[in-house]
Amino acid sequence: MTTLTNSRQVRIEWGDCDPAGIIFYPRYFEIFDASTAHLFEAALGITKFRMFKDLDFDGFPLVRTHARFIQPTRFGDDVTVETRITFGRTSFEIEHKLSRDGELCAECEEKRVWVVRDAQGQLKSHPVPAAVREKFGA
Amino acid sequence: MTTLTNSRQVRIEWGDCDPAGIIFYPRYFEIFDASTAHLFEAALGITKFRMFKDLDFDGFPLVRTHARFIQPTRFGDDVTVETRITFGRTSFEIEHKLSRDGELCAECEEKRVWVVRDAQGQLKSHPVPAAVREKFGA
Amino acid sequence: MTTLTNSRQVRIEWGDCDPAGIIFYPRYFEIFDASTAHLFEAALGITKFRMFKDLDFDGFPLVRTHARFIQPTRFGDDVTVETRITFGRTSFEIEHKLSRDGELCAECEEKRVWVVRDAQGQLKSHPVPAAVREKFGA
Amino acid sequence: MTTLTNSRQVRIEWGDCDPAGIIFYPRYFEIFDASTAHLFEAALGITKFRMFKDLDFDGFPLVRTHARFIQPTRFGDDVTVETRITFGRTSFEIEHKLSRDGELCAECEEKRVWVVRDAQGQLKSHPVPAAVREKFGA
Repeated sequence: MTTLTNSRQVRIEWGDCDPAGIIFYPRYFEIFDASTAHLFEAALGITKFRMFKDLDFDGFPLVRTHARFIQPTRFGDDVTVETRITFGRTSFEIEHKLSRDGELCAECEEKRVWVVRDAQGQLKSHPVPAAVREKFGA
Repeated sequence: MTTLTNSRQVRIEWGDCDPAGIIFYPRYFEIFDASTAHLFEAALGITKFRMFKDLDFDGFPLVRTHARFIQPTRFGDDVTVETRITFGRTSFEIEHKLSRDGELCAECEEKRVWVVRDAQGQLKSHPVPAAVREKFGA
Repeated sequence: MTTLTNSRQVRIEWGDCDPAGIIFYPRYFEIFDASTAHLFEAALGITKFRMFKDLDFDGFPLVRTHARFIQPTRFGDDVTVETRITFGRTSFEIEHKLSRDGELCAECEEKRVWVVRDAQGQLKSHPVPAAVREKFGA
Repeated sequence: MTTLTNSRQVRIEWGDCDPAGIIFYPRYFEIFDASTAHLFEAALGITKFRMFKDLDFDGFPLVRTHARFIQPTRFGDDVTVETRITFGRTSFEIEHKLSRDGELCAECEEKRVWVVRDAQGQLKSHPVPAAVREKFGA
């Protein structure tokens, strides 16, 4: 089975919004970061916490992100985030589409690198383990 | 029916945690603030956004909060927040109990004031509307 | 005098960092958003709060942002954010460069729209007022 | 010299505020947490980051906090946070007073525990090192 996408529901909360009454955009990146973790959890069957324990893995820091904000969302909105992954060798690309009632409100592309710590504790890029790719059907 | 309590599930995310690997405690207050809003939503059947539109209501700012942190939580934890309300005349007290697998991890008491804006736009305390109390069975 | 750029110092705090011990990247966008406001404050001589009172202004929401993360920063780091603006008619482009000890750690480009509320309270794009452009020497 | 108190200036930013236009109170706890770190930095002459490297120290997690919110603050406000410490054996009490133009807006008391990691990596309370107390003149 190919699990290259994941979808989840998120409630926009009062505390996510600014004095204009709409979401303060850094909150979208908190939502997107969690959505990336949830995609891995859906594919691997373990949380990101377990990934650190069970896999050759010390994180997947962001290299770049590009986001477009199309319609504002507000507190009380229930939004859907659809997350899609495309694997490179030591990196992967993520696309998030955040919509409300079927209307696209924001979208984002991320590039992340799979990293492990070397003997000195420094984070270094590392090929995405084959066992991980297989779980995604990639 | 008396709806004086509400319970909800929250996932602790990577971005909620600090370099010690445990939740950064201001994130608990974000969770508690949203839990108070969800309690009202459960009782009234409308979101906080609708409360501003439909009720004599301009917020319920916090007057004081007291929290105790008993066991740390970490990313990947699914926690339960149980929220209970006790009404005064223009204020109310909220108690949150946050637990993981039945173990209490944090608890918090809040005092909040029901406010409306006066003619000058200033926030003033105001009796909690009878229609609101009734929905809570209070 | 032309004030098209502004520079400010920011301390990266413990609570800005994640379990990897480095900044959680949504915090960069909080820093960049504030840096945009500080650029306007430097040019106009009034805070964003006063802008709402004194100008034909109801915000400058983000349309898109693009960021690259080059070197991680950690708690205790004092970073410099240099912010540059280029005006369009109803929009403007912002560029932020965040560095530590002269080394570029992150950079970001934003596109924002100047908005005012119409009679129905909806946010609409609006030409950047001439008085604002003049303060920037544009 | 006795350095039992520290004072610092903080700007309340747009993104710290909620749809009521006032600070979202969890942001106060972010400010207070950083203020505790800055107090130690003022006394010890090293950042919290260096404390992990140079001292028998793995954090000072919060046990409880109590806060009162007296006057709301808003974006553009420059506030002063005065932070005072009282040492116990393995714990300490912190008091923060946040004021604007000399008017007290919020105050907070924290109890924190000095912790180190044991052989299993678990955080355990530990006496505050004498070298630390001495730097505070305690």
